[in-house]
Amino acid sequence: MVAPLTGGAGTDRTRVRRLPDLAVHDRQSLHAVLDAGRVGHLAIVDQDQPYALPVAYARDGERVLVHGSTGSRLFRHLAAGAPACLTVTLLDGLVLARSAFESSMNYRCAMVLGRLVTLDGAEKLTALERLSEHLLPGRWAQIRPPSAKELAATLVLALPLDECSLKISAGPPDDPEDDLDLPVWAGVVPVVEAYGTPQPDPRLRHQLPAPEW
Amino acid sequence: MVAPLTGGAGTDRTRVRRLPDLAVHDRQSLHAVLDAGRVGHLAIVDQDQPYALPVAYARDGERVLVHGSTGSRLFRHLAAGAPACLTVTLLDGLVLARSAFESSMNYRCAMVLGRLVTLDGAEKLTALERLSEHLLPGRWAQIRPPSAKELAATLVLALPLDECSLKISAGPPDDPEDDLDLPVWAGVVPVVEAYGTPQPDPRLRHQLPAPEW
Repeated sequence: MVAPLTGGAGTDRTRVRRLPDLAVHDRQSLHAVLDAGRVGHLAIVDQDQPYALPVAYARDGERVLVHGSTGSRLFRHLAAGAPACLTVTLLDGLVLARSAFESSMNYRCAMVLGRLVTLDGAEKLTALERLSEHLLPGRWAQIRPPSAKELAATLVLALPLDECSLKISAGPPDDPEDDLDLPVWAGVVPVVEAYGTPQPDPRLRHQLPAPEW
Repeated sequence: MVAPLTGGAGTDRTRVRRLPDLAVHDRQSLHAVLDAGRVGHLAIVDQDQPYALPVAYARDGERVLVHGSTGSRLFRHLAAGAPACLTVTLLDGLVLARSAFESSMNYRCAMVLGRLVTLDGAEKLTALERLSEHLLPGRWAQIRPPSAKELAATLVLALPLDECSLKISAGPPDDPEDDLDLPVWAGVVPVVEAYGTPQPDPRLRHQLPAPEW
């Protein structure tokens, strides 16, 4: 069946138990996966109910930066140091095997466990610039920086890359020898992310080129 | 700043607090978002530590199906009825505003809270077919069905669409009037998912066409 994408390695809490051969342990690879993503999912608990909260993020050295509204209950919990898990999953391809059981996906999945810390003052503004430059490269120098009021309405949090795991599934299907004669196409259908044609704001007042990414 | 993607609506636990105007309440839209996705993130708690676990999923009427290995600690917790949250986030575009604060993303985010139930017997096999057909359309009739041993190694779980929320962010940036004269391009850069050229398994023994999706 299409395999679930799961992560885990490092401490006992993050050691890869499922398909441990997919575990990757070098930090360079961890950084590369985090840098390739834009949206992660933060797991947090509120009154015994877990939530998976999508967040835009950026890696900043050995930590990941996220931000949210001071009006967000879950973000206030995160800011208060509640235990959290940030998972970034990149889908690379559909793995078409000759059996349902071996059919799966190729993916890269980084998981970071820990507690987030709140950034303030100059560090807060620098972190917002880092977030913006990761998500919208080159924009920070062009756009209006946040006002004091906007900054006050924003929580900027950092999650250190202390307790992490990285799991990468790649390559062709892993069919057992007995299935190789089955008369069905097998291989990988890559899944790629691309940019569409930029859609100018109807209220655009200047003849300016859209960014070329 | 690039807005965090958050969901919530329905019960008090899922009512949209942040940007409630983005909340969508019809089930047809909820189904459409779930049907457009392949990978969701399941939040689950283990010994006070939340985890966000990426999972392949499929919608089956008014429930979502997932599956995992009986060897997965977190999947066994899910099967035991631990409270969970499945979040499916589809990134549609980067919203380039004239200020950092208004810069954001267009997205569709479905969140489902609840406890998963284990499927067995004929229902389990039907659910695996549904998962396969959602993720790899047309393959089920061609590939080898799961053996008894493979079925025994697989947990198939269903999460009812009882407590759900849907949040959709779309359209151009929402810059305040005062920012409209700033000399910077503004608009939306769509983010689209596409298939790359199918990569045949090096061990492919038959001249067969790759699926055309």
